[in-house]
Amino acid sequence: MKTFLDENFLLQSATAQELYHRHAAVQPIIDYHCHLDPALIASDHRFSSITELWLSGDHYKWRAMRTNGIDEHFITGDASDWEKFKAWAFTVPYTLRNPLYHWTHLELKTAFGIDKRLNPDTAREIYDACNDRLQHDPAFTARGLIRHYNVETICTTDDPVDDLHHHRSDLGVNMFPAWRPDKAMAIDDGAAWRTYVQRLAEAADMEIRSFGDFVDALQRRHDFFHEHGCRLSDHGLDMFYADPYTDTEISRIFASVIDGGEASPADVRKFKSAMLYVFAVQDHASGWVQQYHYGAMRNNNSRMFRAIGADTGYDSIGQWQTAEAMSHFLDLLDGEGHLTKTIIYNLNPSDNAMVATMIGNFQDGSVAGKLQWGSGWWFLDQKDGMERQMNTLSLLGLLSRFVGMLTDSRSFLSYPRHEYFRRTLCNLIGNDVEQGLIPYTGYEQQRVRQMVEDISYNNARRYFTMCPAD
Amino acid sequence: MKTFLDENFLLQSATAQELYHRHAAVQPIIDYHCHLDPALIASDHRFSSITELWLSGDHYKWRAMRTNGIDEHFITGDASDWEKFKAWAFTVPYTLRNPLYHWTHLELKTAFGIDKRLNPDTAREIYDACNDRLQHDPAFTARGLIRHYNVETICTTDDPVDDLHHHRSDLGVNMFPAWRPDKAMAIDDGAAWRTYVQRLAEAADMEIRSFGDFVDALQRRHDFFHEHGCRLSDHGLDMFYADPYTDTEISRIFASVIDGGEASPADVRKFKSAMLYVFAVQDHASGWVQQYHYGAMRNNNSRMFRAIGADTGYDSIGQWQTAEAMSHFLDLLDGEGHLTKTIIYNLNPSDNAMVATMIGNFQDGSVAGKLQWGSGWWFLDQKDGMERQMNTLSLLGLLSRFVGMLTDSRSFLSYPRHEYFRRTLCNLIGNDVEQGLIPYTGYEQQRVRQMVEDISYNNARRYFTMCPAD
Amino acid sequence: MKTFLDENFLLQSATAQELYHRHAAVQPIIDYHCHLDPALIASDHRFSSITELWLSGDHYKWRAMRTNGIDEHFITGDASDWEKFKAWAFTVPYTLRNPLYHWTHLELKTAFGIDKRLNPDTAREIYDACNDRLQHDPAFTARGLIRHYNVETICTTDDPVDDLHHHRSDLGVNMFPAWRPDKAMAIDDGAAWRTYVQRLAEAADMEIRSFGDFVDALQRRHDFFHEHGCRLSDHGLDMFYADPYTDTEISRIFASVIDGGEASPADVRKFKSAMLYVFAVQDHASGWVQQYHYGAMRNNNSRMFRAIGADTGYDSIGQWQTAEAMSHFLDLLDGEGHLTKTIIYNLNPSDNAMVATMIGNFQDGSVAGKLQWGSGWWFLDQKDGMERQMNTLSLLGLLSRFVGMLTDSRSFLSYPRHEYFRRTLCNLIGNDVEQGLIPYTGYEQQRVRQMVEDISYNNARRYFTMCPAD
Repeated sequence: MKTFLDENFLLQSATAQELYHRHAAVQPIIDYHCHLDPALIASDHRFSSITELWLSGDHYKWRAMRTNGIDEHFITGDASDWEKFKAWAFTVPYTLRNPLYHWTHLELKTAFGIDKRLNPDTAREIYDACNDRLQHDPAFTARGLIRHYNVETICTTDDPVDDLHHHRSDLGVNMFPAWRPDKAMAIDDGAAWRTYVQRLAEAADMEIRSFGDFVDALQRRHDFFHEHGCRLSDHGLDMFYADPYTDTEISRIFASVIDGGEASPADVRKFKSAMLYVFAVQDHASGWVQQYHYGAMRNNNSRMFRAIGADTGYDSIGQWQTAEAMSHFLDLLDGEGHLTKTIIYNLNPSDNAMVATMIGNFQDGSVAGKLQWGSGWWFLDQKDGMERQMNTLSLLGLLSRFVGMLTDSRSFLSYPRHEYFRRTLCNLIGNDVEQGLIPYTGYEQQRVRQMVEDISYNNARRYFTMCPAD
Repeated sequence: MKTFLDENFLLQSATAQELYHRHAAVQPIIDYHCHLDPALIASDHRFSSITELWLSGDHYKWRAMRTNGIDEHFITGDASDWEKFKAWAFTVPYTLRNPLYHWTHLELKTAFGIDKRLNPDTAREIYDACNDRLQHDPAFTARGLIRHYNVETICTTDDPVDDLHHHRSDLGVNMFPAWRPDKAMAIDDGAAWRTYVQRLAEAADMEIRSFGDFVDALQRRHDFFHEHGCRLSDHGLDMFYADPYTDTEISRIFASVIDGGEASPADVRKFKSAMLYVFAVQDHASGWVQQYHYGAMRNNNSRMFRAIGADTGYDSIGQWQTAEAMSHFLDLLDGEGHLTKTIIYNLNPSDNAMVATMIGNFQDGSVAGKLQWGSGWWFLDQKDGMERQMNTLSLLGLLSRFVGMLTDSRSFLSYPRHEYFRRTLCNLIGNDVEQGLIPYTGYEQQRVRQMVEDISYNNARRYFTMCPAD
Repeated sequence: MKTFLDENFLLQSATAQELYHRHAAVQPIIDYHCHLDPALIASDHRFSSITELWLSGDHYKWRAMRTNGIDEHFITGDASDWEKFKAWAFTVPYTLRNPLYHWTHLELKTAFGIDKRLNPDTAREIYDACNDRLQHDPAFTARGLIRHYNVETICTTDDPVDDLHHHRSDLGVNMFPAWRPDKAMAIDDGAAWRTYVQRLAEAADMEIRSFGDFVDALQRRHDFFHEHGCRLSDHGLDMFYADPYTDTEISRIFASVIDGGEASPADVRKFKSAMLYVFAVQDHASGWVQQYHYGAMRNNNSRMFRAIGADTGYDSIGQWQTAEAMSHFLDLLDGEGHLTKTIIYNLNPSDNAMVATMIGNFQDGSVAGKLQWGSGWWFLDQKDGMERQMNTLSLLGLLSRFVGMLTDSRSFLSYPRHEYFRRTLCNLIGNDVEQGLIPYTGYEQQRVRQMVEDISYNNARRYFTMCPAD
């Protein structure tokens, strides 16, 4: 029986252990997509308690607590920090086999050096120990944690109207903004969209009277982001949109909604198709990487949406057939010479094989792994999800060219997910070596080791142009 | 090489063996959803032969025999009991790797103490031995088998018009009815539906002239079922329905079909949407658990449907996108405070991740595991299907709060499926312990053991209100 | 650590090794569906180089090279044979974990006796060694390779207008044509379809003025194929079609497009539905086996389609819901007594469970395994895809009645895929035996061994009527 969470956690073979400790663990982290708050990094925020750090915004934990029969008072309500932590500590042992159990203990161990298991018996002791470090240890600030985890580069996720004043160059951290213009295409909520257009006009310092103005304003902000080091966009989609449209139609739809009208479902699809195209052309012109996270069905619980808003644990995995639109969209860009480096993340694992083969249609030999299938995302960001993504990518594409892991997290304690990913990667490869599926002598042994280092670090470093050149 | 079907069948590690033998095997069975015939339980039916018990209604076996090239004469035709058994015995060795092979031998072993493998060489001997016990052993009756398998509670599946006269309290078996009102919503077959409405009127002892009457009549029968101990409903759906509708529309559709008309496809969807809502509100008002089995595409072979009817082995796994309707339906109920405890069973494993995350949207903390993802159903009710359901539930929800196994069977010999499930559960957990993925000392060791006991028995006991309170 | 690609490659247990070496490896190959060029077989083609043999048409390798950042010049462009081979040799080590890595080295080993790994260091040596054999060894011709791999029967894939003059009986190879009438139903491209109808009229030596003539012409060619030993059809579909239509409608659609018109999307669906029915009735009347390969989304990259045409590595896995059409289509044929032996291959693995259960609806006991779920196809033709297909077939049908492997390949070096399949099959069964999931003594031991031999060879031999009778 292997000890829980020892140094060879997840590493089932000697080869896996060698690959991880010598080749993967030593690489820095490029966290090219996350949702960390740049204000907290800029201010080098000190957390008041482990409750703030762990429980103030983590909807994964909230969902687990609700499932465990915890009253909302102790989750997002007015309970005290200690009461909330106690409710979480009560829940933790019920999360066995859920990634939360591993994340929790990896975070306690790698950040705080706590090797105990969190449960009602240890809750107080762990609460106090964590809070003591957070409140008094000079290293336990936002930037301190980033340094602690050997994070070389961070890309935050920012709206085109953001002024990026937190993305300063004097922070001692390579923090770059990333462009997330979802609100610009969300014309289905006319009122919110109009407000957004107004904010965009102010940010771009110009009037927006037409669709042409709208695109120009976005381009101004795109240039502004570029000046601040942004080389990466991200789009949150339910599905892809590639409906046929004409410029005249888009101008009409734009004008109609600007004037207080409501777009028909067909017009919404046309407009979204147009915006995806505009965004992609802008990214290509600037040499950015574009990312698409698609497949989430959001805000399913309207009662709780009214009570506590979005991103509170009421999203789940959607079910749409989007292969044809994805194909048409990428084909249009490729045909016009506008297809930039692209990463696609799917949320429904039933789409895995489709996406893994879709990217192969647009690899053009210009750069290795130009089209990427993103690492297991959100609900799939766990051992099984990572293994499926890497196994399917291996079978249907080239694992060796994979740009690897990102946290996609709001938490400063999520960096051990890179460790989790690297251990899982090394374990998969180690098992193959043990079974004679991969040769592991001479040239090929070097190749395997290089592949581990590449997926852990080098591939991302070469792919993302915000990283320093080799 | 491990011996086939020995005491550690399916249990690959010492931890799995300990968990199973000490913690799982000793628990009673709560079979909260099955299709046993209550008449056979009430009359304590004695089976004339193993052919009656095994082959008179088991469409799993029929499908296997047809695939194996057996003529229908020996399956549902006029062949003798021995001829049919012989045809099955010929087929059994061809079912290796199919769950039928394991079910067959588990049933022979646990019910009859027969440790031989069924094949043409052993067919006669096994046939005679089984028949001898069935015909002469006082313990081998319907209720005798229930006692033999330590079944504490059974819920049958009953139509609202059933008079439940078999559900007597003096049987020495906790048998409760369950409410399955599928026929009430099947307005697409107008003629059959009208007949059903008439039967419902008689059962409810009232006239049904309007949709309001219809709902009232269902409520009367719902109350009647409640008086007979029913605390559970079940719905067989191809997909979920949550189309918008008005009361006026539903009244119009109802009146039109009652008068001999045919509902348009859009009206059928509206009516089904309305009925699902009505059923759910009634269940919530009575504090019942509601179950949804969705995703079967039934009666694909119309030639055989005409010849031998429904439920004869011509159903298969459908392919529908129902996530949005499922979300809207649950959201409506939740928003109005009408969402009762709910179990959703999907038939297409491609929906696994969707359902596993959907339930998380409506966990409200009022009771642990309020929303449940049902155990692997029908085609998925086997080792692989169970493992996938439990692994995905573990990753995307809380396995610890799972209400566990049910037979969903028409056979009095299906109880070893609970054993199969528990062995599979213990094996999964045991493997995790062996690999260091789960801690297994101190507090956590107790938690793991408790979790096994809970999933085997306690979770269901607490969840289903027909069970005696703790 | 097991040695890469040794004699027990993929065989993890002693049972697997015994089953493979004694029962599987010794069976001849029936390659009942491939895309080999019959002209090369008839002329006993000698390949000019390993580049011609490996890289002149293999879009799997082309995709891998593009993903690896290789310029198209070295893939389908004007680079020399050696330059192309060098580019491939550079790519090979980057394909670790992709089936190409295993195929490549199995082919080098089993055809050429080369036990080295292909990489930049060994490229020249291997290139020269292969070319030497190809150019000078009398056994290294098209037919020589077929004999070398113990291939008993080959079915090529041919168009109804082909004159089959290469399918001679004096070749010393059992090569039969197979009927692939895709172009006859491709009415969505009116111009190409009209040209095709004209070619069909010439081949059938009759005028085609009506839909009736069209069907007659196809029947004449069907008879012609039958005379040349054809007993097998194949259809490449995106999805199944079973829209309702009338003869009048089909005649109208036919006439309209023949006259230069364009069919509406609805009419295209009707016409395809009609053609699928016509093809199936013709196959049933002649006692042929019909195959359906469905689910590919083809020619996604229109820029490259214009540049280098179809089948060049720009196809991927589609996403359609076709269960209902598939059911209706098979049901119609079954109900009318026109359902011949049928094999269905799906490309999207999310359809696996659906297809595996669909075939069970139409097993009629007339012949064991009348309906077959085809082996892992195209992107799924690798260890994982094969394992999933065989595991799911085992759980939801009868593995024992499976007709097994086919290459579906354009390459004369693809025969080791049968070895790969058989090793994978034996490994799955061996693991089950080791774990006590399958008994392996007495009657059952013989059955297991027989099952391995049957799936490797006997089942196909009995199923396909072009094979000699037992």
